[in-house]
Amino acid sequence: MAKTQKKTQKKAQKTQKRASKSSDRPKAPPSIATAEYKQRVAKAQERMEAERLDALFITSEDNYRYFTGFQGPVWQNLTRPRYCIIPRVGDPILIVPTSNAVICAETAGWIKDVRMWIAPNPKDDGVSLCADALKSFATKFKRIGAELGPESRLTMPVGDFLRLKDRLAPIEVADGDWMVRQMRLIKSEAEIKLIRHVCQLVSFAFEGLPKQLKPGDTERTAAEKFQTEVLRRGGEKIVYLVATSGRGGYPCINMSPSDKVLKKGDVYIIDTGVSYEGYYCDFDRDYSFGKPSDAVKRAYDAVWRATAAGIKAARPGATTADVWRAQAQVLADAAGLPLTKEGFGAGRFGHGLGLRMCEPPSNNPEDHTLIKPNMVLTIEPGIPFVVNGEKKILVHEENIVVRENGAELLTRRAPREIPVIPC
Amino acid sequence: MAKTQKKTQKKAQKTQKRASKSSDRPKAPPSIATAEYKQRVAKAQERMEAERLDALFITSEDNYRYFTGFQGPVWQNLTRPRYCIIPRVGDPILIVPTSNAVICAETAGWIKDVRMWIAPNPKDDGVSLCADALKSFATKFKRIGAELGPESRLTMPVGDFLRLKDRLAPIEVADGDWMVRQMRLIKSEAEIKLIRHVCQLVSFAFEGLPKQLKPGDTERTAAEKFQTEVLRRGGEKIVYLVATSGRGGYPCINMSPSDKVLKKGDVYIIDTGVSYEGYYCDFDRDYSFGKPSDAVKRAYDAVWRATAAGIKAARPGATTADVWRAQAQVLADAAGLPLTKEGFGAGRFGHGLGLRMCEPPSNNPEDHTLIKPNMVLTIEPGIPFVVNGEKKILVHEENIVVRENGAELLTRRAPREIPVIPC
Repeated sequence: MAKTQKKTQKKAQKTQKRASKSSDRPKAPPSIATAEYKQRVAKAQERMEAERLDALFITSEDNYRYFTGFQGPVWQNLTRPRYCIIPRVGDPILIVPTSNAVICAETAGWIKDVRMWIAPNPKDDGVSLCADALKSFATKFKRIGAELGPESRLTMPVGDFLRLKDRLAPIEVADGDWMVRQMRLIKSEAEIKLIRHVCQLVSFAFEGLPKQLKPGDTERTAAEKFQTEVLRRGGEKIVYLVATSGRGGYPCINMSPSDKVLKKGDVYIIDTGVSYEGYYCDFDRDYSFGKPSDAVKRAYDAVWRATAAGIKAARPGATTADVWRAQAQVLADAAGLPLTKEGFGAGRFGHGLGLRMCEPPSNNPEDHTLIKPNMVLTIEPGIPFVVNGEKKILVHEENIVVRENGAELLTRRAPREIPVIPC
Repeated sequence: MAKTQKKTQKKAQKTQKRASKSSDRPKAPPSIATAEYKQRVAKAQERMEAERLDALFITSEDNYRYFTGFQGPVWQNLTRPRYCIIPRVGDPILIVPTSNAVICAETAGWIKDVRMWIAPNPKDDGVSLCADALKSFATKFKRIGAELGPESRLTMPVGDFLRLKDRLAPIEVADGDWMVRQMRLIKSEAEIKLIRHVCQLVSFAFEGLPKQLKPGDTERTAAEKFQTEVLRRGGEKIVYLVATSGRGGYPCINMSPSDKVLKKGDVYIIDTGVSYEGYYCDFDRDYSFGKPSDAVKRAYDAVWRATAAGIKAARPGATTADVWRAQAQVLADAAGLPLTKEGFGAGRFGHGLGLRMCEPPSNNPEDHTLIKPNMVLTIEPGIPFVVNGEKKILVHEENIVVRENGAELLTRRAPREIPVIPC
């Protein structure tokens, strides 16, 4: 190896080392303990008694993980469903394809009753096993809770569900999802640590970005740089990625990155949902290519202050409608907009966060969920404005946990002024 | 800037340039043209006449994109569902939250009838709009096709679906998904180009990995290196990521990466589903830390040859059961296993691939789907073996498109011998 090459390599190693200092890659907190899964099941069983349910029938990735610890990439394969049944009394049972046996043992080994079939088997992909198990439990109330309610997703073919429902009759199948959602509103300290961890590492990735972005990047290549930063800092899965831009403001808050070249005058936003051990962050950051216009400065200032007002309002005793109103008032004052959802064109200014990127409640004027300690929320105001006849929007977002004395930030707060990429 | 610093930077830029040569980042093929979406809708409408359906009711990400072009990260937010209705005659209509208006215009702008509501609105999240539209179309057969069949996922709260079904009665709601799956079996040249693109870029990422892996990596950090490579080569979304390992073979094929340190004697596998413009690759590669044992060499040789046999068998006129048998025969001969699904402990040796990572058909003895030109399949044999009393498995996978004269590889073929990471 030539001498200059060696020198370059050493230099590169040194730079690499500097870049990888501990704050760049925060230390991961402990995983959820088996005892906590057992507590969750016990709590659900108490509520099932009150809700007159003999069993909960769980099919969706987040609820499945919440109660059992089961986790793996297999949810992406829709050919093979899997089921968990939590009886009113006793341990849960898992009904899974044989190909999931090792995952059960490794991630949910505390559950001993695992029933299996070789999948795919379109004639009977676990339905008979589920029917037999549910019938055996439905002895007291003759009522089963399934994932049917608002914001739920039954993660199995619905044709199979309708057949299962017929086979269970006269046992009633009611919604059991809303009860679970209500339980999940309040996070444990272990959950909060995992959410804070992913919020922090993604905050660092956002903060490192201005040094890396340059005019000539496309929305796509700029988003690649961000994703690479997230991975380097220990992010597990980049599940949600918005990256969009526009002259003097972007047109909406939920587009995938395109091959559009970023140049002077553009405002670029990345909004992301990254997960760590299944727990999500969900927040965004703006970047101005070249000096921001006065309109962008005004909009950024208004949403920054609206975010601050939302964070302040998120206290025990307030409602999610109050958190909406605190944000809406700042925006209405700044932009002369009417104080209604229609006025802002958005259904809400933030939501719950946990094992799903978007959980109940919603910060909107019709949601009167009482805010309690250990709720985790996003605070997400957006301001519409017009530039040269084009509709624009600017959105901010932070993630918080509510404590006895008020909100605690889980993300590192967005800069007070929009970061500028020299052009 | 100091002189040495400048030199280092120049050197780094040069290296960067070399690393980014065209083969590292294959040129992206064109997107699906609007004309193709229109053809798909027209073809579905022909079939709907034959299947006696007045309309298709579409809720799932892949079917929605297949027929309309609509795409965006918004599917991750389960609070807000969206609907597409394809009537037996005429253009589709979209029923979406107001926050999806810009996405509709930008990605599915050819569809002019877009009906909207401000979401979330748990009292009526689009259900009334859907009921009104479906009723207006259900005039001839009084029958609607929804996503209910095998491998389907109805992507809305099922409570809302049951209410919608009640409101539509006596109009019948039947399965319309299987009809769509059958259409989607045969890919267009534009679709094949997109699948090949993502297969190629991920192949390059796999091939670059042996130079980067080293003992001391964890399953997690090694997977980060792979993901960074995929991003650098233009991969869009890393949706599915298996990364697992074990001494002399891994215990299963579908675990997430852990913090386990990789060392001499380990076999490490990455299996991944990466998407580009919604189209997936799905394949894996093995790596041996240090020289492989004889057992690993034998297993690798057997699955490599089973893959070759599967690729050869995937010809027009054969069935997916034949493709299973060709692979199973090689494995049975090599390991003395019985020629049954139970013998291998796996339900299939590969499947369809497209806008979903796992589509019908399945290569298994009970699936007698006739293989036709332009089907895209994965060939995925796995061999179970035992090392020191521990159950191991070795799995290979390649992606192919069937042509008149036989299969054409979309991935770059796995090395004939397992790549070795020096230890």
